[in-house]
Amino acid sequence: MAAPTDQTVYRATTTAPVNIAVIKYWGKRDTTLNLPTNSSLSVTLSQRSLRTLTTASCAGKYPSADELILNGKPQDIQSSKRTLACLSNLRALRRSLENADSSLPKLSAFPLRIVSENNFPTAAGLASSAAGFAALVRAVADLYQLPQSPRDLSRIARQGSGSACRSLMGGYVAWREGTEADGSDSLAEEVAPASHWPEMRAVVLVVSADKKDVPSTQGMQTTVATSNLFATRATTVVAERMAAIETAIQNRDFPTFAEITMRDSNGFHATCLDSWPPIFYMNDVSRAAVRLVHDINEAVGHTVCAYTFDAGPNAVIYYEEKDTELVAGTVKAILGENVEGWSGPFHEAVKNVSGPGVALDKVDPRAVEVLKGGVSRVILTGVGEGPISVEEHLVSESGDVLSH
Amino acid sequence: MAAPTDQTVYRATTTAPVNIAVIKYWGKRDTTLNLPTNSSLSVTLSQRSLRTLTTASCAGKYPSADELILNGKPQDIQSSKRTLACLSNLRALRRSLENADSSLPKLSAFPLRIVSENNFPTAAGLASSAAGFAALVRAVADLYQLPQSPRDLSRIARQGSGSACRSLMGGYVAWREGTEADGSDSLAEEVAPASHWPEMRAVVLVVSADKKDVPSTQGMQTTVATSNLFATRATTVVAERMAAIETAIQNRDFPTFAEITMRDSNGFHATCLDSWPPIFYMNDVSRAAVRLVHDINEAVGHTVCAYTFDAGPNAVIYYEEKDTELVAGTVKAILGENVEGWSGPFHEAVKNVSGPGVALDKVDPRAVEVLKGGVSRVILTGVGEGPISVEEHLVSESGDVLSH
Repeated sequence: MAAPTDQTVYRATTTAPVNIAVIKYWGKRDTTLNLPTNSSLSVTLSQRSLRTLTTASCAGKYPSADELILNGKPQDIQSSKRTLACLSNLRALRRSLENADSSLPKLSAFPLRIVSENNFPTAAGLASSAAGFAALVRAVADLYQLPQSPRDLSRIARQGSGSACRSLMGGYVAWREGTEADGSDSLAEEVAPASHWPEMRAVVLVVSADKKDVPSTQGMQTTVATSNLFATRATTVVAERMAAIETAIQNRDFPTFAEITMRDSNGFHATCLDSWPPIFYMNDVSRAAVRLVHDINEAVGHTVCAYTFDAGPNAVIYYEEKDTELVAGTVKAILGENVEGWSGPFHEAVKNVSGPGVALDKVDPRAVEVLKGGVSRVILTGVGEGPISVEEHLVSESGDVLSH
Repeated sequence: MAAPTDQTVYRATTTAPVNIAVIKYWGKRDTTLNLPTNSSLSVTLSQRSLRTLTTASCAGKYPSADELILNGKPQDIQSSKRTLACLSNLRALRRSLENADSSLPKLSAFPLRIVSENNFPTAAGLASSAAGFAALVRAVADLYQLPQSPRDLSRIARQGSGSACRSLMGGYVAWREGTEADGSDSLAEEVAPASHWPEMRAVVLVVSADKKDVPSTQGMQTTVATSNLFATRATTVVAERMAAIETAIQNRDFPTFAEITMRDSNGFHATCLDSWPPIFYMNDVSRAAVRLVHDINEAVGHTVCAYTFDAGPNAVIYYEEKDTELVAGTVKAILGENVEGWSGPFHEAVKNVSGPGVALDKVDPRAVEVLKGGVSRVILTGVGEGPISVEEHLVSESGDVLSH
């Protein structure tokens, strides 16, 4: 291999996962540093279903300004303080390495060209910014060959998008709120790897798109500023739930995990409704999914599934693999084969499911009708790993942008 | 007039109003005595629109058991502890009078025959039990010629249905939670008579009936027992709002009255959502009404209307008479003439309204569509008086049940 020249393009590519919180992040105590009002906890979802693929590259020959291309569209980096914060933090870490070892190429001085693609539509209403910023931070850290751990890097990813810090790890991930004003202890950490409880599955019910009323960044600060009930949630309720759900994860205790997950989702949406003006993310289709989950659990006689809703109407329903027929089978029987998504990854589990796991007369008939009319696709997935380094680059050896 | 004989039928008839709370009653600290966890405040609605008509009668010749006939249907009084509690309290008061004055006929020893009719369908989802128990207590108190004030009688009506205590008075009525274990200080009182602020109007949007999931009596105790956010509402938030809305009523300050009303409704529904299992009373049509109200206020540039929702999806929208065109006119323009209710009492105010008060392009188009499809009738009404004694009896002079 030839020695680096001005023509050399340095590249590193990673995938990063989506995560879905079971204890919700909602509210910042510092909006610049993205420091949260409370800790949160999520399940990292398998990249077989949903992932962001990002190549970070740099070269002396690139035009002088950093470039970022998302899903084929060049972004205005200069107008994104959050992206600038991440890149500047990562460059500073690279510069320290270079200062300590003069044999290293001066990558920190080169312009960056970062190309990123999601394998799922943004319109699906999934937390694409979490996977996106996690992939960006991981890819640039790999490009710069930074020695920092995922936990250390989570401090940087957090500044891109709060929940992105949790997408730097696989399995069951906590984001500790921290107490320091500079955010140095507001970090993600693995509570348990995916291998500890690999049977966790999720089916996402994608609700026919209603435009989102209030973006989450704005919505959460409305809640912090106006909800009379929010402080109780942030200061008391979440701390107890964090401790309890971590124990449930350690014990692979699904019923406890499920109840805490559902109650935290409800409590989060309650504080949204208590905001002024009120914020509604759940709609009648979401309510029907809530009813479905309660009805399945009641019909089975114990808790086999749990819903959670982020800042939108989509339902994420967690269950264990052994209960696939009871949960995903019932959903499939209600929605039918025509709804998109049954044929993707994880489809093996449901492909032989012909009838509902739970007799449909055990499910509220109005909920069945509303779900039939309101769910446009499903995504079958499960707990998965953190970012993975890959050789499927989105930038060619000569620096051209490739598309997939 | 002949002296009373065994054949004499004693009668008294009253009407009683519906009230709609602006600070919500939700949660009992004593379920037998109907003692609430927090104070509440309501607007008594005009009996030109909605009223219960009740005749209480008694006679020595009646069959030995008390009888109650609601909307033509005989009720099983013995299975209704709440009705028994009201009647036994009222009889005890009558007995005291009779003991003190032996010239009084011994009505307390006679069986009762009580006949009651609502002029609105129960299916409308309005708080018919409040008007019903208020009318029952008022009619029997009149029959017994009890000297107790409405405030004193509210202690009895409260045991029938909590919110009934507020229907014994007109105008703006507070129900003080009280502190005594026996409920002796948990009473309704007039904050201001209807004549203090007679311009208050309301349009009720009756949402096409979804069967109610959880009856309010059961729902409120689920919330008390399970919601992590409820205690904050009951102990802190409501007390502040009570003080503030009473001042707003004294000052006829509609914008403040409106904001507190909306926020309290949202906060109450937030605690329902935070209950376990969660309770949903608002649906997508309710959300569309919320949006409509916010959009009208924004288009006008100041607050001219306020929504509130009880334990069901119907919206009650308060406004002042001068803003009829802006509020009811806009609702009429959206729903059209075909929706029932524009021709009832209070129709004069909107009959000449031809266009929307607020241009419909200022209202979220999805909200307009959802309201068009989901509201089955409207009820135009306004603040009104308390129970009124009338001569339109539902029991004949000879004791026969009459129907209207």
